[in-house]
Amino acid sequence: MSRTEPARGMRDFLPEDVRRREYVIGVIKRVYERYGYEPLETPAVENLETLMGKYGEEGDRLIFKILKRGEQEATGQADLALRYDLTVPLARVIAHHQGKLPRLFKRYQIQPVWRADRPQRGRFREFYQCDVDALGSTSPLIEAELCAAVADALTELGFSDFVIRINHRQLLTALLTAAGVVEGQHGEALVALDKLDKIGRDGVKNELSSRGISEEVSDALLSFFATHGGDVLDLLAEFVARDGNGSAAVANLRAILQLAAGTTAGERLRVDPSLARGLSYYTGAIMEINVSDLAGSLGGGGRYDNLVGMFLGQSIPACGFSLGLERILVVMGERGMFPPSLATTPADVMLAVFDAGDAPHALRVAEMLRGMGVRVLVYPEAEKMGKQIKYADSRGIPFIGILGGDEIAAGTLTVKDLASKVQHTYEQAAAGAAILEALKQRG
Amino acid sequence: MSRTEPARGMRDFLPEDVRRREYVIGVIKRVYERYGYEPLETPAVENLETLMGKYGEEGDRLIFKILKRGEQEATGQADLALRYDLTVPLARVIAHHQGKLPRLFKRYQIQPVWRADRPQRGRFREFYQCDVDALGSTSPLIEAELCAAVADALTELGFSDFVIRINHRQLLTALLTAAGVVEGQHGEALVALDKLDKIGRDGVKNELSSRGISEEVSDALLSFFATHGGDVLDLLAEFVARDGNGSAAVANLRAILQLAAGTTAGERLRVDPSLARGLSYYTGAIMEINVSDLAGSLGGGGRYDNLVGMFLGQSIPACGFSLGLERILVVMGERGMFPPSLATTPADVMLAVFDAGDAPHALRVAEMLRGMGVRVLVYPEAEKMGKQIKYADSRGIPFIGILGGDEIAAGTLTVKDLASKVQHTYEQAAAGAAILEALKQRG
Repeated sequence: MSRTEPARGMRDFLPEDVRRREYVIGVIKRVYERYGYEPLETPAVENLETLMGKYGEEGDRLIFKILKRGEQEATGQADLALRYDLTVPLARVIAHHQGKLPRLFKRYQIQPVWRADRPQRGRFREFYQCDVDALGSTSPLIEAELCAAVADALTELGFSDFVIRINHRQLLTALLTAAGVVEGQHGEALVALDKLDKIGRDGVKNELSSRGISEEVSDALLSFFATHGGDVLDLLAEFVARDGNGSAAVANLRAILQLAAGTTAGERLRVDPSLARGLSYYTGAIMEINVSDLAGSLGGGGRYDNLVGMFLGQSIPACGFSLGLERILVVMGERGMFPPSLATTPADVMLAVFDAGDAPHALRVAEMLRGMGVRVLVYPEAEKMGKQIKYADSRGIPFIGILGGDEIAAGTLTVKDLASKVQHTYEQAAAGAAILEALKQRG
Repeated sequence: MSRTEPARGMRDFLPEDVRRREYVIGVIKRVYERYGYEPLETPAVENLETLMGKYGEEGDRLIFKILKRGEQEATGQADLALRYDLTVPLARVIAHHQGKLPRLFKRYQIQPVWRADRPQRGRFREFYQCDVDALGSTSPLIEAELCAAVADALTELGFSDFVIRINHRQLLTALLTAAGVVEGQHGEALVALDKLDKIGRDGVKNELSSRGISEEVSDALLSFFATHGGDVLDLLAEFVARDGNGSAAVANLRAILQLAAGTTAGERLRVDPSLARGLSYYTGAIMEINVSDLAGSLGGGGRYDNLVGMFLGQSIPACGFSLGLERILVVMGERGMFPPSLATTPADVMLAVFDAGDAPHALRVAEMLRGMGVRVLVYPEAEKMGKQIKYADSRGIPFIGILGGDEIAAGTLTVKDLASKVQHTYEQAAAGAAILEALKQRG
């Protein structure tokens, strides 16, 4: 006998799980479509060289690699790999199909990605990302609309308490420089800084010190992130006043906030100068969405104007946002946010048959009902009435359709409400409409 | 610079491709739901041992294997593999989640599978299967409903010329025995027989002879498949009259045909005693769908009562049908079967802005329109009117919304039909309804 569990960190989705996943994906898609983003899909498998070197050293280690095939299998070498995110494949697609794609291209992509991470609560080795990106424009309107689109999607799913933190990579660089962090230490300082939420000021200070950054520099840096009264952008503008890139970054953030003001994102956006984001390809604004009852983020994104150039040899400006489906599902599950109308039964009505010879009639009546849009399960065995009703009850099917000798002779169908035990007999041709009406009454 | 093409045999799907794929998947899902099948999803990655030995020798060779990770990577060994079909993972799920699943379980599953096949026209290394299976019953009603469901799905997609060929593994065994094929040669004889369509009677005879089957036996076997007048099942029943399993198979096929008679599948079903199907796990009825302008099949399936037992140690009867999404798309594309209503533009209206300072107003108006369900693309740059209109035109966007100084001051929006050049100015709050009405008029 073979083992029956799914591979480590992977999950089977039973019907109720799939319906919840599809509900959330459906809402997100509908919102993205309203913003003029178009769907794109890429293969699960990429050439290994397409992915290697794009995600930093840790990313490279977490890529699932696929063994060569046929005679080459014995070499133990890999030539293919599983998709690690949806952004690098997008950059490849933009370069490869350039002639076919418009110069301004807004796309969404909702597909699984795979990472050989250590599985833990809420972290899986196969998980869906819901990405939305715009290519071909450096306008801050792009960032504002991305924030508005994800804010609309979350609002439509029922979230009313999320915050979109926003920062800017060039502003971070300017702040680090202003505090006296030498350029070679910027990367390490950002990693420490990114943990301010989790480990607090003293924690960050210890970590900076362990990375060889002096207390004086630490204090200067952390002073930027003290809780401010007043407009945080005004203060930041002062700190980086003599740094051209830093000042431009502040102006860019101001423009994004002003543009987003009239949208759902307007009251969600908070400038957070300590937000750093892990991925190395960001070049401009960076964003992250949080809710209070989840340690990680519901999603994040930013501008990455140089990534497409790694495939095309010519820069194309790009900016995107990725929502994490699994985390959205976790929070919605814990908070009971799924609509009660989400189907939990396999059918609206189950047809029961008491004599195998009557089954062809059952299939014919089922076909009529299905033609009206009724979901019909035909019980496949001519078992005792009690056993058949028990099955319908256990599956939460609200109505049972009884097709006995009398009904077949008269061309009727008896429909019984399993909750109220009330039953009516209809002409077969009228039964579909009657069931749909009864379903509507139940709500 | 990195290479930009997708991996060999894999494809990128641009927006128009994705919309076509989603349209077909949507129709198939809706039909399956009407039959009481419930959605299931399994991981793309399975433990290697879950898949090995389930598909026969050739199948094993075509499985994509995933290299071990971390310190184990250097061993060159694989421990995981990509999903090769949706049936073996279903059997694993049935065994693993047995306590949670109903004793009668009808599920559908529409997901990609991967095979390291040599790519050729219409054959890819990543392709979608649309599977529908019923577990827990040996009733011929199961087969009849599976045929009805796939026939409904194809009919709803616009196919009116398909045939569902049906045969029975036990009948094949009885026929081979009756013709004098010794049991050890049954497998090889089936492989030759399966090609009757493609290579004709003489071709099959040559192939049988090259496999060491005598001319006398060949002739006896092929005589069963000569074009018959009369009821083919009556003739087959005679040939296998003294074989208990063969007679039971004929009775089973009769029952399926009788049950299906009142459904969409009724006039589609043809008994074809030469249909063999490749996979080794079938134990009862086998089915395949063909249209005249496609060499391969649009889908196929059958009963496999012993597969779940390989995981559970206890048999659970099972029967299923798989539609091949890629082939359905190929035929629909060649025949021009996609509905013209399928969206080919990114938006219903594009908002144009002439002064960057006006952009916040554009985002606010866009939000109002989107709230009404209008798909809105906001042009991100304050470029010249001509350039913006050219972009909208090139993308097939039917309307342009103009938000200049006058409109902003008056709280209005000017909407221009890019085909007729007619324009109207609306109160911003009324513009959404007006655009929706205009879209309806265009059809």
